[in-house]
Amino acid sequence: MAILGPEGTFSEEAFEQYYGAFPLPLRYENEIAAVFERVVEDPETEGLVPLWNSQAGSIPATVRMLIKTSVSIVGETVLPVRHCLLGIEGTRLEDLELVISQPAAFLQCERFLRGMLSNARKEIVDSTSIAAATVLAEGRRAVAIAPLRAAKVYGLTPLVEGIEDCDDNCTTFIHIANRAVIPAEAGKTSIVFSLKEEPGALYHALGVFAERAINLTRLESRPRSPGSSDYMFLADLDGGIGDSRIEEALRELAARASFYRLLGSYPVAAAPRRAAASKS
Amino acid sequence: MAILGPEGTFSEEAFEQYYGAFPLPLRYENEIAAVFERVVEDPETEGLVPLWNSQAGSIPATVRMLIKTSVSIVGETVLPVRHCLLGIEGTRLEDLELVISQPAAFLQCERFLRGMLSNARKEIVDSTSIAAATVLAEGRRAVAIAPLRAAKVYGLTPLVEGIEDCDDNCTTFIHIANRAVIPAEAGKTSIVFSLKEEPGALYHALGVFAERAINLTRLESRPRSPGSSDYMFLADLDGGIGDSRIEEALRELAARASFYRLLGSYPVAAAPRRAAASKS
Repeated sequence: MAILGPEGTFSEEAFEQYYGAFPLPLRYENEIAAVFERVVEDPETEGLVPLWNSQAGSIPATVRMLIKTSVSIVGETVLPVRHCLLGIEGTRLEDLELVISQPAAFLQCERFLRGMLSNARKEIVDSTSIAAATVLAEGRRAVAIAPLRAAKVYGLTPLVEGIEDCDDNCTTFIHIANRAVIPAEAGKTSIVFSLKEEPGALYHALGVFAERAINLTRLESRPRSPGSSDYMFLADLDGGIGDSRIEEALRELAARASFYRLLGSYPVAAAPRRAAASKS
Repeated sequence: MAILGPEGTFSEEAFEQYYGAFPLPLRYENEIAAVFERVVEDPETEGLVPLWNSQAGSIPATVRMLIKTSVSIVGETVLPVRHCLLGIEGTRLEDLELVISQPAAFLQCERFLRGMLSNARKEIVDSTSIAAATVLAEGRRAVAIAPLRAAKVYGLTPLVEGIEDCDDNCTTFIHIANRAVIPAEAGKTSIVFSLKEEPGALYHALGVFAERAINLTRLESRPRSPGSSDYMFLADLDGGIGDSRIEEALRELAARASFYRLLGSYPVAAAPRRAAASKS
């Protein structure tokens, strides 16, 4: 299993939550795109990547690779995400000059940073554990925004725990594989499509679901090209591809769409379990 | 007029394009939220802020403030955005340790950075001109991703011009004001709404436009709360509020919506003019 690394990321936490323990050897990649590339190249390797955060929205690198590659989503897990400020023991907030993390983490902790660390500079890296590792090199002038588990891995001290702006901050991770097997218990289907530019295009496209009483549980749009109304839509449907209503609706949508790809049909994640360490 | 500053930002360039020259005294704010706050507090001051980039998508701070405050959009302009790598004269790419810019600029230049500057660290600040100003303090180890105009303002040298990943990279800026005046020549209407959670909710909501042959030129969704299908939709309609079809459709939508706000009805921007310095 390939995940975003090095050791100590939220991806690792999601992996434990998804599998219950560490049944498989983990392969750490330094960026999300590299996890996808590994899965594409090696049919034996699957991946677990963050797709969507409740506060920051879609993770751009994951969406881009889902559209670009042909990997399938075969499962998902929703992780409550609790950010901590990690520093070398003895670090004092008032001496901090630098905060290091990945871009989505900054978006999730904006209010805290503006209040407590408005004068510190902000450095972006590809993962929270790279951030933690960088703090070791920077000394007591720097802190990382990272999961608590990264403190143990890198020998850092949690200075403040739970700095995310939103109490029910959570991230959906998807299990990706380079095969199109659809689990029998699939209760959710993800697709990406774009439409010919014409009035009412999206309305008529959504009609294929509404007519069959299929519920859309997520619809996100991304611009596909500048200056036009050409959009790429990512949608999640309530129901597996084994359901004939879903199958029919998707056939109809594919015929209307200027681009269409089935991302996967897979079991719905359980609602996020709030960790014992949670704020609530 | 309040814009994101200090001097030398793309906002300043958009302002010149919008007004043709500098007919008004400019007031520079250090972040987008502060531009909105200024406009809310002072009815005499209007603002010009980036809303949407063709590559990076919506600018989170602008969308958040549009939802949160009651300012209106009264105009727009679409600026071709050309990023440059600015450094102190004599800076050599091979010696660079640090690249400084605002988050959306990093998203627009990812491919370039990965290729040419994969070892440099990345610092995020609130505007491209803050980035340029910071380079002065950092010396030849650092560069800013910023507009060419910032080179003149800060006495920096453009090391590489046109580093954006996408040739037709452009940003839509909106003119905001704390008043609900609707220009007679309004040909575009922007709204934000969210819907009660029920199957087909978006389909039926879009029906109010499709039935009246009203074209949606943009529809973006943002999660409103985690784990639910509660979305906030930002939509642009082809037509002004003076058009009775639009007025009727919006009345019907407002009745269906769990949240609804008219952001503004204003003249459509001309297609972006490619600057003479453009790559094409």
